[in-house]
Amino acid sequence: MRTYLDCYPCFLRQALEAARQLGADERKQKIVLERVLELLRGIELSSTPPQIGDRVHRLVREELGSSDPYRAFKESATREALALLPRLRNAVRESADPLDTAVRLSIAGNIIDAGIRGSYELWPTVERVLSQPFAVEDLDALRERLARVPLLLYLADNAGETVFDRVLITALGVPVVYAVKGAPILNDATLEDARMAGVDREAQLLSTGSDAPGTILGRCSERFRQEFADAQLVIAKGQGNYETLSTQGSKVFFLLQAKCPVIARDLGVPVGSIVLRQGGGSDGSVADRSR
Amino acid sequence: MRTYLDCYPCFLRQALEAARQLGADERKQKIVLERVLELLRGIELSSTPPQIGDRVHRLVREELGSSDPYRAFKESATREALALLPRLRNAVRESADPLDTAVRLSIAGNIIDAGIRGSYELWPTVERVLSQPFAVEDLDALRERLARVPLLLYLADNAGETVFDRVLITALGVPVVYAVKGAPILNDATLEDARMAGVDREAQLLSTGSDAPGTILGRCSERFRQEFADAQLVIAKGQGNYETLSTQGSKVFFLLQAKCPVIARDLGVPVGSIVLRQGGGSDGSVADRSR
Repeated sequence: MRTYLDCYPCFLRQALEAARQLGADERKQKIVLERVLELLRGIELSSTPPQIGDRVHRLVREELGSSDPYRAFKESATREALALLPRLRNAVRESADPLDTAVRLSIAGNIIDAGIRGSYELWPTVERVLSQPFAVEDLDALRERLARVPLLLYLADNAGETVFDRVLITALGVPVVYAVKGAPILNDATLEDARMAGVDREAQLLSTGSDAPGTILGRCSERFRQEFADAQLVIAKGQGNYETLSTQGSKVFFLLQAKCPVIARDLGVPVGSIVLRQGGGSDGSVADRSR
Repeated sequence: MRTYLDCYPCFLRQALEAARQLGADERKQKIVLERVLELLRGIELSSTPPQIGDRVHRLVREELGSSDPYRAFKESATREALALLPRLRNAVRESADPLDTAVRLSIAGNIIDAGIRGSYELWPTVERVLSQPFAVEDLDALRERLARVPLLLYLADNAGETVFDRVLITALGVPVVYAVKGAPILNDATLEDARMAGVDREAQLLSTGSDAPGTILGRCSERFRQEFADAQLVIAKGQGNYETLSTQGSKVFFLLQAKCPVIARDLGVPVGSIVLRQGGGSDGSVADRSR
């Protein structure tokens, strides 16, 4: 997905929030914002938003000398989610359609997002998503693929959401390779965050080798790119993965909450929607779905 | 009130929305945004937000060659409010405390605001504000002043809100000079907008001589500045007037809805609050209230 002009205010807001997460004083925050203003003057709208976000957050980390502004946020989100794990597992156990419920729970966990304005409440979100109709629901296509693949690649999004992913992984009935960021970006999960959430008990962990938001294949390791190319089924969590992989073919299934108005418009759904969407076009091709 | 870094994303958003109001295509919108990015790199946080907003909106008007991007918005808001006028007058007539009700209605009308993100519904807002507790309520001080002044100066905010102001003006029981912008800025009311709302039937209209948001006294006409200096009571509507006049002494009463998080924080109230606040310090002095 390309970048829209509506993304500009959001990049500024994200940079400001990241600087504050690091305890920067207002003078330092202003220096960061002025560098972001300069960066935004030169961007191409044909880039995906995560490509710009990557540069914005890199700049914040450089300017403020921190490698992980969202460490505390991520740990707290993971602890909060772990406390819910027994209730989440129970919801799947008691469900007439465990896969549907587990998919919903994984999408519910996608509410955890430091890149979005505003706050959230975790358990009320779970209850909402368990009963909310899907705006896009390609569950039958997902079931069909699941029945005929030997394993699948699962692209993680945020720390804490990882705990919700564990519940889905268990319900998939197929071995899972769980890919996380190679280094901190926003509150995206890294290997360390995934281990804190206990995902290594359910899946094989893999680093994408990249610290850009979403999954920018050109920025990932050779090892990860090979894994992505070989996979016959990819579950891609969250808006960033949709923004960067929406043209990667029908083997990719996007699970997300549409929290951003620009992405919601691109998906053709209202803000607040829950989405399970199969990617378009033929597997593995690039830019095969014009919007 | 000074400018905060949180205002930067908002200036960008406002510029983008104004460009779209004018039907600018994306290429033109991008040119406007890039000029705003450049402008924001050079601003001083000691300026008030309306001082920056003034430069942002001037730039949009210059770049897109329009003197009044919000003309259609203003006319539509005024028509919608006029349709409610009989119900508004009725609410005051039936009230046990007509001044309290009229003040609330005037504040309800302050929901009409093209500078704020999101949409609103007018009548539900009226119903909410009629029953909502004030976050700040200096009504007794206002009553006391009203009883001993020969006339008052009323600083308008937005077109459409003007209709709600008519209802308050009638309930004040004191002759009113109603001051509007000298030329279009955002959806602020001008002489033309005030006449369309019929305010000239209730009050004497006066132009501030300025097309900056809020009331930047240094940008106003000599005539208006004299009127402001002579006034023993000033009713100032909306956030922009609070941002620019919060240090102008106890003769100024601010009536507004706190729609912006930064202003709400400055006022010490939650977003969504309704506020009737007497200004601090001694009458007419400048910068006599340090925050």
